[in-house]
Amino acid sequence: MIRIAIDVMGGDFGPDVAIPGAAKALERHTDVTFLLYGQKAICEPILAQFPTLRDKSQFFDCEVSVTMDEKPSQALRRGRYVSSMWRAIEAVKVGEADVVVSAGNTGALMAMAKFCLRTMARIERPAIAGIWPTTRGESIVLDVGATIGADSQQLLDFAIMGGAMARALFDIDRPTVGLLNVGVEEVKGQDEVREAGRLIREADLGTIDYRGFVEGNDIGKGTVDVVVTEGFTGNIALKTAEGTARQINTLLREAISRSFIAKIGYILAKSAFDVLREKMDPRKVNGGVFLGLNGIVIKSHGSTDALGFASAIDVGYDMAHNGLTAKIENDLKAYHARRLPPPAPEALVVDEEL
Amino acid sequence: MIRIAIDVMGGDFGPDVAIPGAAKALERHTDVTFLLYGQKAICEPILAQFPTLRDKSQFFDCEVSVTMDEKPSQALRRGRYVSSMWRAIEAVKVGEADVVVSAGNTGALMAMAKFCLRTMARIERPAIAGIWPTTRGESIVLDVGATIGADSQQLLDFAIMGGAMARALFDIDRPTVGLLNVGVEEVKGQDEVREAGRLIREADLGTIDYRGFVEGNDIGKGTVDVVVTEGFTGNIALKTAEGTARQINTLLREAISRSFIAKIGYILAKSAFDVLREKMDPRKVNGGVFLGLNGIVIKSHGSTDALGFASAIDVGYDMAHNGLTAKIENDLKAYHARRLPPPAPEALVVDEEL
Repeated sequence: MIRIAIDVMGGDFGPDVAIPGAAKALERHTDVTFLLYGQKAICEPILAQFPTLRDKSQFFDCEVSVTMDEKPSQALRRGRYVSSMWRAIEAVKVGEADVVVSAGNTGALMAMAKFCLRTMARIERPAIAGIWPTTRGESIVLDVGATIGADSQQLLDFAIMGGAMARALFDIDRPTVGLLNVGVEEVKGQDEVREAGRLIREADLGTIDYRGFVEGNDIGKGTVDVVVTEGFTGNIALKTAEGTARQINTLLREAISRSFIAKIGYILAKSAFDVLREKMDPRKVNGGVFLGLNGIVIKSHGSTDALGFASAIDVGYDMAHNGLTAKIENDLKAYHARRLPPPAPEALVVDEEL
Repeated sequence: MIRIAIDVMGGDFGPDVAIPGAAKALERHTDVTFLLYGQKAICEPILAQFPTLRDKSQFFDCEVSVTMDEKPSQALRRGRYVSSMWRAIEAVKVGEADVVVSAGNTGALMAMAKFCLRTMARIERPAIAGIWPTTRGESIVLDVGATIGADSQQLLDFAIMGGAMARALFDIDRPTVGLLNVGVEEVKGQDEVREAGRLIREADLGTIDYRGFVEGNDIGKGTVDVVVTEGFTGNIALKTAEGTARQINTLLREAISRSFIAKIGYILAKSAFDVLREKMDPRKVNGGVFLGLNGIVIKSHGSTDALGFASAIDVGYDMAHNGLTAKIENDLKAYHARRLPPPAPEALVVDEEL
């Protein structure tokens, strides 16, 4: 049984999306129970419309809700211990839930998750991993906005964590991993990325198949299963891709609306457009995964609908079901065990005698 | 009369694309003459097929050609003074040409352009500006790969130079400018971008209308005329957008090919697809502009065809015709004049008497 904690108040639409979303996810997974955190007076009438969900969940009344425009520090001050967001995260910490899902404010969610769950041993900064639709299927891109300006060691951590997530999500043994870089040779300033490439190669990790540098256009091609970059570039790449998809959609619509024949053509070709839309549907790949914390946190897009929220729950289900946290811990441990052998006890004794 | 120097040997296809491309551009601009730099034995038979172009151009035989995979340092050693690339750039330096266009190796072209033309006063590092198709029309994005990790002062220089280019290209008085950033509040590490925002606001430039931060999805929307970012992020955003457009194209083709009805629909809607393709055609917006040098250098995509190469020449024509270099120089001078008032001559005299 997978136990999923939901911050029902998070996101642009709060319980209007989170509750129907959870109900949808429940249709797909019968081995799930929910812990719902929200304002009872608002949530109860909505929950009453989904009796199956109500029967499979416990509701916890929380007076405070973190708003979408609150600064992380402000959200922490106001919402620590008492908000629906905090209490949903805490359920994972105390072992009552296996994963938490929230469509709330990203900065506040990350701040609370770090404060409550803490980062894993030897992980300085967590990352947010996004699932990216590609020509081949799906890839993982991290970090998409948690750590601006990661150094080479952090990029290596991302490669290990992203590899573990790919094994949990795609059911492959040794996912391919690439470091996002620019193609121009001999350009100054990409030292971190080059150094990270050297570190990953030298680490010779058994859990990933490192393929070297990839460029921006490789993401959509699906050249590798996991694309590693620091958060500033990753966030901008993600939003640029979303913007380009929307732009093409807008331009095509405008062009079709200008011609009667084209409109008829569009209707006939609709099945093909539906396939495309389904493959590129941001709701289908909704769910950023926070990596590097002692617990699984899934961030749903704030403006998504019930279908999108259900996808975020699906991601959380997969991650919990496939033991993401243990996979990451083991992979990190294996790397560090080989890298930093403990000093031999004899040497210590000699030192003490001096 | 605009005089355009062409590195005929540059690019994946050299004279097979550069010569027909120049001929196409000549059809659109009657007030143009060309200075063609290349290997005579290879170019002469191709040039013979375009008598109008041959009559409007001078040919300069160059034995050395820079290859596409040569490192910049290697290209400089082997090709300085003698290669078609160098000599085409030099024509701008000595005032024989108004602009140079090359489809050659980007790193080598930038290295040679910097070495030969030198950067403008008070510009430390040049930028490459790309022209980006948007829902509204076109925007300029810089830097797309010349300066990795620009500091806040360099980002301000980019804003000034991008503004001057927008005035030259779009014929608007005071282009809108945005700084590319991530939306998450209170994230560490974006200090350069924030500081640049402060600098640009304080500079209160009369030549641009600064609109603050924009995000990745704003580029395709055309939220601002000029998007400023450092070269690593800019290059990855550009290639990610290209990759996404190609991915949508591939997925749609696959979906259409699977259904007979959809194929018919596609044929009927073809006019709309043609409009879209034209708007998103990378050949139509071909031509990266090197900014911050004492002369105009246009980099065409290496793998483009004659139509694409002609577009790069068009960009060069517009930049020369509208006095890009003078516009940038004036704008930089105006900014620095207000920022660093020269010491009064009296003060200097006093100092000398001490």
